[in-house]
Amino acid sequence: MRRKAGATANPNRGELALIERIRGRAARTAESGLTLGIGDDCALLRLKTGEEAAVTTDLSIEGRHFRLDLHPPEAVGHRTLARGLSDIAAMGARPLAAFLSLGLPAELAEPTGRKRSAWVDRFLDGFLSLASQHKTPLAGGDLAQSPVALADIVLIGEVPRGKALLRSGARAGDLLYVTGCLGGSASGLGRLRKGGRNGNGVAAAHLWPEPRIAQGVWLRNREAASAAIDVSDGLSTDLHHLCEESGVAAEIDSAALPICPGASLEDALHGGEDYELLFTARRTARIPKEIAGVAVTCIGAIVKSRASGPRVTLMDGARRQPLPARGWEHFRT
Amino acid sequence: MRRKAGATANPNRGELALIERIRGRAARTAESGLTLGIGDDCALLRLKTGEEAAVTTDLSIEGRHFRLDLHPPEAVGHRTLARGLSDIAAMGARPLAAFLSLGLPAELAEPTGRKRSAWVDRFLDGFLSLASQHKTPLAGGDLAQSPVALADIVLIGEVPRGKALLRSGARAGDLLYVTGCLGGSASGLGRLRKGGRNGNGVAAAHLWPEPRIAQGVWLRNREAASAAIDVSDGLSTDLHHLCEESGVAAEIDSAALPICPGASLEDALHGGEDYELLFTARRTARIPKEIAGVAVTCIGAIVKSRASGPRVTLMDGARRQPLPARGWEHFRT
Repeated sequence: MRRKAGATANPNRGELALIERIRGRAARTAESGLTLGIGDDCALLRLKTGEEAAVTTDLSIEGRHFRLDLHPPEAVGHRTLARGLSDIAAMGARPLAAFLSLGLPAELAEPTGRKRSAWVDRFLDGFLSLASQHKTPLAGGDLAQSPVALADIVLIGEVPRGKALLRSGARAGDLLYVTGCLGGSASGLGRLRKGGRNGNGVAAAHLWPEPRIAQGVWLRNREAASAAIDVSDGLSTDLHHLCEESGVAAEIDSAALPICPGASLEDALHGGEDYELLFTARRTARIPKEIAGVAVTCIGAIVKSRASGPRVTLMDGARRQPLPARGWEHFRT
Repeated sequence: MRRKAGATANPNRGELALIERIRGRAARTAESGLTLGIGDDCALLRLKTGEEAAVTTDLSIEGRHFRLDLHPPEAVGHRTLARGLSDIAAMGARPLAAFLSLGLPAELAEPTGRKRSAWVDRFLDGFLSLASQHKTPLAGGDLAQSPVALADIVLIGEVPRGKALLRSGARAGDLLYVTGCLGGSASGLGRLRKGGRNGNGVAAAHLWPEPRIAQGVWLRNREAASAAIDVSDGLSTDLHHLCEESGVAAEIDSAALPICPGASLEDALHGGEDYELLFTARRTARIPKEIAGVAVTCIGAIVKSRASGPRVTLMDGARRQPLPARGWEHFRT
């Protein structure tokens, strides 16, 4: 976190005060590879011998990824970090450190009274709680005033060299698996939209997604998966990405899909933001029914890609239909 | 760069098209440690044995850091990357890879006709040209629609373990140096504001700052500097940061300041965005008049910090006056 404020500023005001608040809360985790955290031009990180760094960034913008009237600030903070951690999980990596760039309207940075915290402090509550759960120190970032709230999260993880789970490793004949259940985030968001903040209780899957770090590490440790991706944009879209990068096609079995309670088939296929792991494995691989406490379900198989055939086919009993990528996309006009 | 778009989208439209354009242009540099670039959940990077990673992020927002009516898109791209590279330079590190998160209003992502490029393509022209100059591949990032244009840059560099230049190493008795000249960016911006885009020719220092990578590496290689910071927020503010982190005070000599042609003393003291290196060295260190083609000037000295004394003193002949941090600050109300 760069310090952009003068030492003479009132410590209760200005960016300096906010950065000092963040710096004070972003405790350094002794066991991590972080040798220098917030306060210099860069943070410094060491990797263990034989490891390489996995790096991802994810941008969340008010009105596109969250709404101030719908999402509690703690959930925005949690979801911001979860998006980054989920990408680390999809590589089978372990998180080392997080960096956070925040753009905030001035009113979200100011405490709003003795008993009420600033929006940004409640954001940090959610963010740092998940960070602590995954032993991931907040090692730096940037801060700027902005007409809309936005958060760009950077996650750096480590993974043994050459062992990361890639999107490109799926082969025809592999089976297709997913962790947890699908559609919970989309159906939770729907309930939140109808009930406003009163919907929070029934929208947990949307507000507090759990990145599948332990499951990714398990799969990578045992070299059990041939390819992996996280379900951030929706099963249909993310499966297309995996198939494209691997040069294969996929068939999924509608009846086998682990649809979350209260969610529809549509939510499960296209909803997005479930942050489950979608992975492939050779038929000879032993994939248990549960990894680190989370269910694992076989939902289909990888097949050869044909020029005339669809990338993804949805099978419903005897019916077969092409499944287009209808998940999340920006800039679609 | 995560792919958020469906394979079935029209390749001239949507985020997929834009990401494919970026992916096509972001060539992998064979000699870098980048083993996996754009197209998976994370990029993968290898560090050389004995090196640690230096990581920085910098957020630029339309209306705060640049203006669409004033800054050519190429300059916004150049300046975005320069901000990150300058932090890498201040640690004495070498850049390994860049990650870019872009938030864009839809109209800036669309090509505006046969002969005219989209704003984002011109942004990338400026960004990738500087990236290529510093052999820094664009290894990933994110893309989202946003009501205002914004760019968050992440730079990852490498530096021998324990050898990075820090803000905290200055000691009383050290001399204080700066590369290049100061105030050029602020005075250039002033001219740009008066003359609009016609001012471009006289605003080069503002529009096309040169990060001092070679100078930082030179200083670190020779273990010549005791502390360093880049002048991004203005000499007065950045010198305060360096003094605070080192627990010292500083005296600078007004007559010694290398003020850029056309700039005022005020510009040089508080202007910011010069991206020069401000560093300290023991009196016994041999600091040449020029490093890698850029002038180096001694502008003062580090002294003991006294509770009653100012952090930074400006000396003008026999006159001594406290120099407050009056550089760039967000959230100052």
